[in-house]
Amino acid sequence: MHRLLILSRHAEAYRRLIEVEHLADLEIASSDDCDVVLGEPSIIAPAIGRLTSVGWVQSTWAGVEPLLDPALRRDYVLTNARGVFGGLMSEYVFGYLLAHERKIFHKHAAQREGRWDPTPAGTLKGKRIGLLGVGSIGAALARTAKHFGMHVKGYTRSSEGCAEVDEYFHGSERLAFARDLDYLVCTVPNTAATRRLVDAELLAALPPRAVFVNPGRGSIVDEQALAAALREGRLGGAVLDVFEQEPLPADHVFWRTPNIVITSHTAALSFPVDIAPVFIDNYRRFSAGQPLRHQVDFDREY
Amino acid sequence: MHRLLILSRHAEAYRRLIEVEHLADLEIASSDDCDVVLGEPSIIAPAIGRLTSVGWVQSTWAGVEPLLDPALRRDYVLTNARGVFGGLMSEYVFGYLLAHERKIFHKHAAQREGRWDPTPAGTLKGKRIGLLGVGSIGAALARTAKHFGMHVKGYTRSSEGCAEVDEYFHGSERLAFARDLDYLVCTVPNTAATRRLVDAELLAALPPRAVFVNPGRGSIVDEQALAAALREGRLGGAVLDVFEQEPLPADHVFWRTPNIVITSHTAALSFPVDIAPVFIDNYRRFSAGQPLRHQVDFDREY
Repeated sequence: MHRLLILSRHAEAYRRLIEVEHLADLEIASSDDCDVVLGEPSIIAPAIGRLTSVGWVQSTWAGVEPLLDPALRRDYVLTNARGVFGGLMSEYVFGYLLAHERKIFHKHAAQREGRWDPTPAGTLKGKRIGLLGVGSIGAALARTAKHFGMHVKGYTRSSEGCAEVDEYFHGSERLAFARDLDYLVCTVPNTAATRRLVDAELLAALPPRAVFVNPGRGSIVDEQALAAALREGRLGGAVLDVFEQEPLPADHVFWRTPNIVITSHTAALSFPVDIAPVFIDNYRRFSAGQPLRHQVDFDREY
Repeated sequence: MHRLLILSRHAEAYRRLIEVEHLADLEIASSDDCDVVLGEPSIIAPAIGRLTSVGWVQSTWAGVEPLLDPALRRDYVLTNARGVFGGLMSEYVFGYLLAHERKIFHKHAAQREGRWDPTPAGTLKGKRIGLLGVGSIGAALARTAKHFGMHVKGYTRSSEGCAEVDEYFHGSERLAFARDLDYLVCTVPNTAATRRLVDAELLAALPPRAVFVNPGRGSIVDEQALAAALREGRLGGAVLDVFEQEPLPADHVFWRTPNIVITSHTAALSFPVDIAPVFIDNYRRFSAGQPLRHQVDFDREY
């Protein structure tokens, strides 16, 4: 018999979604005596030290930073939520790309003034989008970009597996990747290799019309360099869901930076109805002794 | 030799785009002595009476209302611009659908107040969209709706030719079509049969959460009934590009109606770069004596 501890803000929803599956040899634990844990890394991290029998932890998030703290145990299999955020991320990113092309905020302001505003809208068709990272989320964004007739550039460590990416760039080709973009979208995981990947140099390589969208991780960006580029009109705009510190502090420069959109880490929330199937699929593998999907490599950090 | 008169606000752009094609037996006329006309119906209508040699008029718009005036001649072939607006219409409609799901205006207001706003966004996935009219524009909308995982209902006179429509409705099934929609989008042409198709009865059949989007023609809607439904909270919102009278008069109730977006007839503008190929293709047919594409039936009104 396996014993599952659920450490989540949505524990009741997860319990219901799992119980209706009647999974073999599984009971839901109400104490620390468990060998399987499902939940948010931020809640699991402070508890992991005392969960001495744990063999497997399923994160409800894609990012698992709190569990990567070198002070914590790593003697268990850690799996994350992957392959479920592509659709939501696509709605987030293209919602704001279309808002930009259609001048939605501009037209909203005109309407509030009672003003008929025939300013023509732009179009995504033929525009160039650069994906910093082409994992499952990047691939979903590439599909939507192609649907709208965009040219898709991808920057990855080495992979070139997504058919919807028109041009791949790697390693030192970072600035050539950026040079002619209309949109730069960042979906790389937060690792030592991606920290400050979007720095002053990359921002300077972007055309002044370009809009930067970050639904990934705040640590990817040099926030001061981004604020300066926007303030000085060297960048068309930024749509930011994630930040070095969240909630974004009241005195942060971003609250006063022009052409910025702040969406308060809501781009792709982990809904139990989406995440529970990832756990259920993995549990069936776990109880059959098969390898689990979406295993995190503690050293690679994702 | 054929003589083409261009009656358009973008006459110079059309001239350049056509001249580079070196079309056989075509010269661009600078007087009323012409047998072919390309341009906006609103500019052609006042001139058509004196263009006595005209055999063919290519409209740069999809809608040709000004030329349907029964007082005007109908002894020529009239073709309209079709098959070129689907992409732009799709960007318009899904820009505002995503703005609604992502609570873009709500989050914009929070940001202006310096407020971190973790309100979760909605999703298009699984939502139900109803297309009132499934011509080439409706079909483009259906493809984008399926891309985002929506359920697509279509209401047409009789056609059922679009594979991306999940359920078709016709004639008296108007209210069954409306009953469970999250979004109602109207792309029917302006004809006697479609006038006031969106009336108080149809609006009452929609769920109170539903959002109505009209990038088609203003005459389709009973504007007073729509304003009342929005004011009384019987409808979730409306996104309106077109109106009975344009520009929308300063004293029109819509300027003071809640949950309305007014986009000032900019949903899908006729750009010469998109429309010129329609003319060029049709000219080749015309000069070869073949039937023209996109012929308007004056009696059917489209």
